Amino acid sequence: HHRDVIPRNLPGDHISHYDLNKLASTPMAAYNKERVLILSPMSKFYNEYWQNILTLTYPRELIELGFIVPRTAEGDVALKKLEKAVKQVQTKDARFAKVTILRQDSESLASQKEKDRHALKVQKERRANMALARNSLLFTTLGPFTSWVLWLDSDIIETPHSLIEDLVSHDKPVISANCYQRYYDDEKKALSIRPYDFNNWVESDEGLKIAAGLEDDEIIVEGYAELATYRPLMAHFYDAKGDINTEMALDGVGGAAVLVKADVHRDGAMFPSFPFYHLIETEGFAKMVKRLGYEVFGLPNYLVFHFNE
Amino acid sequence: HHRDVIPRNLPGDHISHYDLNKLASTPMAAYNKERVLILSPMSKFYNEYWQNILTLTYPRELIELGFIVPRTAEGDVALKKLEKAVKQVQTKDARFAKVTILRQDSESLASQKEKDRHALKVQKERRANMALARNSLLFTTLGPFTSWVLWLDSDIIETPHSLIEDLVSHDKPVISANCYQRYYDDEKKALSIRPYDFNNWVESDEGLKIAAGLEDDEIIVEGYAELATYRPLMAHFYDAKGDINTEMALDGVGGAAVLVKADVHRDGAMFPSFPFYHLIETEGFAKMVKRLGYEVFGLPNYLVFHFNE
Ligand SMILES: Nc1nc2c(ncn2[C@@H]2O[C@H](COP(=O)(O)OP(=O)(O)O)[C@@H](O)[C@H]2O)c(=O)[nH]1
Ligand SMILES: Nc1nc2c(ncn2[C@@H]2O[C@H](COP(=O)(O)OP(=O)(O)O)[C@@H](O)[C@H]2O)c(=O)[nH]1
Ligand SMILES: [Mn+2]
Ligand SMILES: [Mn+2]
Repeated sequence: HHRDVIPRNLPGDHISHYDLNKLASTPMAAYNKERVLILSPMSKFYNEYWQNILTLTYPRELIELGFIVPRTAEGDVALKKLEKAVKQVQTKDARFAKVTILRQDSESLASQKEKDRHALKVQKERRANMALARNSLLFTTLGPFTSWVLWLDSDIIETPHSLIEDLVSHDKPVISANCYQRYYDDEKKALSIRPYDFNNWVESDEGLKIAAGLEDDEIIVEGYAELATYRPLMAHFYDAKGDINTEMALDGVGGAAVLVKADVHRDGAMFPSFPFYHLIETEGFAKMVKRLGYEVFGLPNYLVFHFNE
Repeated sequence: HHRDVIPRNLPGDHISHYDLNKLASTPMAAYNKERVLILSPMSKFYNEYWQNILTLTYPRELIELGFIVPRTAEGDVALKKLEKAVKQVQTKDARFAKVTILRQDSESLASQKEKDRHALKVQKERRANMALARNSLLFTTLGPFTSWVLWLDSDIIETPHSLIEDLVSHDKPVISANCYQRYYDDEKKALSIRPYDFNNWVESDEGLKIAAGLEDDEIIVEGYAELATYRPLMAHFYDAKGDINTEMALDGVGGAAVLVKADVHRDGAMFPSFPFYHLIETEGFAKMVKRLGYEVFGLPNYLVFHFNE
């Protein structure tokens, strides 16, 4: 039945009709030929990220890619590498439906080392800037026949190949994977894994109390000892022996690997760059999704892996 | 210099590059070949609206049109008339760059008579529904080279032909025209004009006091005696002998005829369907624009005219 949503493009007259009611986002996404838009803000190009994208099993002709690259020297380098990689694929038969590369218009923070960018005091400015980049990317690339948006940070270098099919199968408005990191454990002299992204969380009484005591324009960013929210963090709910499909309801999400039904964005869900219930960026996004009447979920046992600098 | 922003479309490989930094929104819009996207939610098709659009002097090849039509019997009629009108123009040489017609996916309120739809108690649901329609339209049609978005309600049947050039010349993030209505004055036995849209306003102490006393999920909608905000309303600032270019700063806007720099939307400005500082839809939009750090203006002496049922 997907033919109904394919635009009746009357060639030459530039008129397109779309019936949003027939635009589905279902667990049968690939079968129904539902379009998935993968959006990645990108300050660095990692070959492993790109190779991982190339191994995704969701039909490539149903995938659109969108990138936004900052206006920095680092961004220049990323852009060149990205363009080269994209060109190689897009000149082949098995290419993506569409690739859009945006150059950010705003300034970026100069220093992006892991230590610098995680300092609590630079978080507000950094995350506000990230929110603007995500919104520019979203507003510019979401098309009339996008069914799903997969937010995938460009330093996520390893996911199951069936990432899209897996997330789609949960049929949730918003669903977030658990973002871990591989590292070498010096004590155990062995490769191991550890939690990386602490932005997937459940609200706590402490968190609400802290928020109630804040000035209008102050924010809470999760994952800092200075702000002890005691929020249950999805990162800590990982159970290696548990069911990979276990779901948990969330109140905050990170941006590492999050699948969103396109209609949730179309209803207005964006990434606030200003304090929204004392939250910004992906955490503010989750709050906005809930204000729009949707539920947000996470998959504690479904891991994706962040690059290790 | 506009050539820089035209996408380097590499035909065949489906890759597009856009530099948002070179995408300008300037008072020299037509000269710079800046693209304007006119967005109209449409429950009824008025021939006068369409004729007015056709007489706009901004270069038609730089204008894209976007419509969203509700899923009602009334919407069916509007859609048929709109499609016929659009087809007539788009098969000619002087056609619009692009026309997108969306069919809304959500339900609409059945009764849309002026009296019914203005009853205070139905406003919250009605305006929330309008916000969702506006967001769907915006998120779906805003493209990578849109410079300006003109929100123009489909019952605005008369504007200066130079509407776009005039609004653009003010070079503001958001600027709203003053929406009046022509009517027959039975006492004076003559045609006259009267204010129609009361959603263009300046915040007042009373307004802030009312907001402070509201429950989290309660809203203020302007223009109702039941909620006396004493907000200065732009509708009342019209001076027939005044300078047509007079600007005034606003805190709330209506959707009748509002020009928005596309980058303001790209930063995340949308129409909240949930109470946002006790405001929704276009009034909530203005508040969000301000939270994003932009200013909002109105032109009290610059009139556009609403249909009179
Ligand atoms: N466009 C853009 N992307 C950025 C910027 N800073 C970081 N990114 C990307 O945004 C994502 C998240 O940022 P990152 O610094 O990795 O966040 P962290 O992993 O939470 O510390 C990654 O994909 C980065 O490549 C920026 O200034 N502009
Ligand atoms: N898509 C859509 N458009 C609508 C709906 N209701 C009204 N409109 C349009 O939205 C605009 C504003 O609505 P209207 O009822 O005229 O508001 P008012 O003039 O403030 O009373 C007009 O262009 C209407 O045609 C709806 O349910 N869906
Ligand atoms: Mn990262
Ligand atoms: Mn109206």
